[in-house]
Amino acid sequence: MLAPLIAAALGLLSLRASAAGPSKLNLLPFPTKASVGSTVVCLSKDFAIELDAASLGGKEAPHDLLMAIERAGVTLMNRRHEYLSVSGGLEFFEDGQGCAHYLDTLVLSFAPEADYGSILSHATAPVEKRRDAEGYRLSVATQGRAHAVAGTALGLFRGLTTFENLVYHVDGVAVGLGSAQKAPGQVPLGSGVEPEGVKYVPFAPYEIEDKPAFPWRAVLLDTSRHYFSKHSIFRILDTMAMVKLNVFHWHITDSNSWPLDLFEFPLLAQKGAYRGRVYSEDDVRDIVQYAGERGIDVVMEIDTPGHTSIIGEAYPDYIACHDKRPWTGRAHQPPAGQLRFADSQVTEFTSKLFRAAMGVTRSQYFGTGGDEINMKCMEEDEPTAKALAEKGWTIEDALRDFTRRTHDTLAESRRTAVAIAYNNTGLSNNTVVEIWVDSKDARRVVDKGYRIVHAAADYFYLDCGQGGWISADGGQGNSWCDPFKTWMKIISFDPYKNIEESQRKLVLGGQASLWAEQTDEANLESVMWPRAAALAELFWSGPGANGYPRSVLEALPRMHDIRYRILDRGVRAAPLQPEWCALRPGVCILDG
Amino acid sequence: MLAPLIAAALGLLSLRASAAGPSKLNLLPFPTKASVGSTVVCLSKDFAIELDAASLGGKEAPHDLLMAIERAGVTLMNRRHEYLSVSGGLEFFEDGQGCAHYLDTLVLSFAPEADYGSILSHATAPVEKRRDAEGYRLSVATQGRAHAVAGTALGLFRGLTTFENLVYHVDGVAVGLGSAQKAPGQVPLGSGVEPEGVKYVPFAPYEIEDKPAFPWRAVLLDTSRHYFSKHSIFRILDTMAMVKLNVFHWHITDSNSWPLDLFEFPLLAQKGAYRGRVYSEDDVRDIVQYAGERGIDVVMEIDTPGHTSIIGEAYPDYIACHDKRPWTGRAHQPPAGQLRFADSQVTEFTSKLFRAAMGVTRSQYFGTGGDEINMKCMEEDEPTAKALAEKGWTIEDALRDFTRRTHDTLAESRRTAVAIAYNNTGLSNNTVVEIWVDSKDARRVVDKGYRIVHAAADYFYLDCGQGGWISADGGQGNSWCDPFKTWMKIISFDPYKNIEESQRKLVLGGQASLWAEQTDEANLESVMWPRAAALAELFWSGPGANGYPRSVLEALPRMHDIRYRILDRGVRAAPLQPEWCALRPGVCILDG
Repeated sequence: MLAPLIAAALGLLSLRASAAGPSKLNLLPFPTKASVGSTVVCLSKDFAIELDAASLGGKEAPHDLLMAIERAGVTLMNRRHEYLSVSGGLEFFEDGQGCAHYLDTLVLSFAPEADYGSILSHATAPVEKRRDAEGYRLSVATQGRAHAVAGTALGLFRGLTTFENLVYHVDGVAVGLGSAQKAPGQVPLGSGVEPEGVKYVPFAPYEIEDKPAFPWRAVLLDTSRHYFSKHSIFRILDTMAMVKLNVFHWHITDSNSWPLDLFEFPLLAQKGAYRGRVYSEDDVRDIVQYAGERGIDVVMEIDTPGHTSIIGEAYPDYIACHDKRPWTGRAHQPPAGQLRFADSQVTEFTSKLFRAAMGVTRSQYFGTGGDEINMKCMEEDEPTAKALAEKGWTIEDALRDFTRRTHDTLAESRRTAVAIAYNNTGLSNNTVVEIWVDSKDARRVVDKGYRIVHAAADYFYLDCGQGGWISADGGQGNSWCDPFKTWMKIISFDPYKNIEESQRKLVLGGQASLWAEQTDEANLESVMWPRAAALAELFWSGPGANGYPRSVLEALPRMHDIRYRILDRGVRAAPLQPEWCALRPGVCILDG
Repeated sequence: MLAPLIAAALGLLSLRASAAGPSKLNLLPFPTKASVGSTVVCLSKDFAIELDAASLGGKEAPHDLLMAIERAGVTLMNRRHEYLSVSGGLEFFEDGQGCAHYLDTLVLSFAPEADYGSILSHATAPVEKRRDAEGYRLSVATQGRAHAVAGTALGLFRGLTTFENLVYHVDGVAVGLGSAQKAPGQVPLGSGVEPEGVKYVPFAPYEIEDKPAFPWRAVLLDTSRHYFSKHSIFRILDTMAMVKLNVFHWHITDSNSWPLDLFEFPLLAQKGAYRGRVYSEDDVRDIVQYAGERGIDVVMEIDTPGHTSIIGEAYPDYIACHDKRPWTGRAHQPPAGQLRFADSQVTEFTSKLFRAAMGVTRSQYFGTGGDEINMKCMEEDEPTAKALAEKGWTIEDALRDFTRRTHDTLAESRRTAVAIAYNNTGLSNNTVVEIWVDSKDARRVVDKGYRIVHAAADYFYLDCGQGGWISADGGQGNSWCDPFKTWMKIISFDPYKNIEESQRKLVLGGQASLWAEQTDEANLESVMWPRAAALAELFWSGPGANGYPRSVLEALPRMHDIRYRILDRGVRAAPLQPEWCALRPGVCILDG
């Protein structure tokens, strides 16, 4: 049933991402191995995606895989993304004969000894298990059927996504051999055009073997500076799945607002959310479920003890320098205020809070933050001074105790901490540390033995470049992390720079972060996309033909392709170049 | 009928934009003179806008004014913009008694000796006539009626817009005196809330006298790098009208595409538009009409002789170095190609093109461009060399002749040229010159006696800050006009910097330009808004309380207010600060 996946045996051109010009394989992220042919193959009108029942070995099919198949069928038929060229793909049908080859089925098969768990179960598994779980093979013949094989439902889902991203729409193609007739020569050629256009893959046969280079490929959304509706988060998750991103790092709270409405702590959202705009526990569960079904792990973060001013609206006793003015000097940005972490009651409260939040997530990972603790705020705080004096602690002792105790709560719930700070010794060894401000910090963190996620502002902050937002007369300042991080900057990052060979296993992947000071639903999608897709390529595809950095020129046509695909799904991804350039790969480059 | 407009007599607080904190008058652009009171006045359920028939002196009411009134009525009732504060305006109804004061009518009256022409007729009038035509007075009483008076329909339209921008929506207000009963005390207080919310003005009575400081307040849209649908242009025009911008500078063509489908030159769009996406002559007329009815003059620009490569698709003989590779060195950006301006046939063609384009516009002004002529391209061009030799011309002679002849066409059609270049002597004295690259150039241009529009990249390019888009391996470059121009930068511009008192009359105004290399409909609105509103304030309101530069701090709450108003109209204006800040004027500032 399964065609042999040996490209060489088929005499096909073997592809690697190369800088030599546009690839025929406009996939982003680029697969590990791929070969293409030169046959244009249309999807027949009754094209179907089938799960290979025999491969289930009597087991029940994962429900979320069945739903993914159903969605993919609808997507394939409804999308109208055209091939990016001056004639929009009509060049593939220049002989006027319409479609000469048809695919009628995409079969998804579990490999022998597969794990039949749901997509979600694999998406939320520990990070060590993810790379293998995401692997798949996909072959697309020049006639008849395409076939994806994987050892998990998650792998099959990734293969399905790859297939979707191979397919183009074109209008104006002649009615050829008839859409219902797949064997050539059964009907005379028509003289009209296919009334609903045609879906096709231009370079069959395809043989693809694929597996991510890194297990942690994340987008961070900050839902505190501005609120984002559940619907807009679903749209992010849908788009993440298109480019095989697999971690949604949900920075759900911060000093500006507390949208997380926990059953156990109703006051927090009641006093701290922007009026009525909250995530109920059910909303969070919906988002976790929606993400998991799309191969995405939701890692919630409750940043503590800094970035918590808003807690003071509900619990004024727990927050030092709550909204104290001027905020300048007491916080990186308004308002000032952070947890009184020397107070045992506050530590206890935070642990309970973590426990409650973990109760509505399913990830193995939970973010505890730890960044930007302001010492002036703590020094000015009388209750903190009193607590320290009583215990005979320094402020550092207090912070270490707070971190250790609150992180113990994670261990009790069998979760692993994802943290930002790494200089205080309260962190356990298995903590995942996000490299925050400067990518150069990576080496120092792996030297301490922590696993890291590259998320540094100098490459991966999607919000940089909109100028400073703290207002001042004559204030024309840049933001601290200007300039804008282009997709070219992101994709040119080297995850192993200054990292020893022996430390490479500690690099889990990367994250594009959207801090929302200057972003809400109005501009969310164009700030995030397609740049987060460049990160997806970097950490899925790994090194390019010449190692790191990957080639910008090679990626350019694929970035255009995925941008227009995302747009075709109704998501407002920003354009990268004039449309003239998108239609002419290789021209809008230096010396092009 | 008309309440006396003397604020002092009413004992009202007289307002000037001041840096002393948030204004009670959240209008943007800020009016010339204004006073406010402290009475909350609701719009009655049967609130109506009426044109004062007696003031027409027997003349027919301008049709576009009647339409504007109808639109405003719908807008007022449908919009749900809330007052920006933590309780969203509920603080104005804290006594629980609901509305105690009602407005039932906004009356628009023509002043004695008014000009009864349409809004469009005034919007498209010569620039000298515009400032007076846009003036109006508006008074809003604490009970009964509001009243706008102006000498033209355009002035009344501006007053109407101001009224719209005074009104807020709020939900959760108690049913008060009953919406049908405007006199106090007629019904007992209800215990429920107004089911559809309430529209109100918070600080009546208002007395406003207003008139623009500059007659040219423009937005430029480039529809060549990317195509923008008629619908998306309508949305720009609607938003421009909200902030009293009055010139839509339509950079309709450039080297990338030719969307202008002229009846006389069908080949241009057929060969040069992105497949099928064109503006027919009727489309242009619709846009001109739609704009005019909203007080906006459409100034079309056909940039020549550079920025014309795409003409070579239809007329290869007219374009030197058409799409020649590499483009580097032959153009500022791909593709290379410009008109063979030494060729008399090309000059003739361009004149005809201008004539055809002017035929579908109504403005007194027409843009001819003139920027970025690449000399290498011309020097390499054999037909140009031959033409120069035949005529005994230098290339400068040829350019001067081209400019003079093509501009003669404008004079014949009684149009005034809007140009970029100013160094070649082919320009007539009455040309309006747009200051392009550097705001410091302004002085040199006014010294030559030209009228100018401030449009320089260092303050007014909305596209800057998205990074370079010409791709290169390792390419992480900024764009040439980085950084991003924040609203604070824009509003801090001094239009008279280095300009002598006697030259001030030559400064017509300013323009925010959206070059569309990295912008299409996906991100158009968030790139343009609300920053273009900062330009509207700068050139409508003129100097602030302390002259130029205007105060950023004073404008901040008004910028937030207009941003959320624009968003409420469904236009994706970007946020300026965290929502927490928008609700707390005066905190998110340096040392706030």
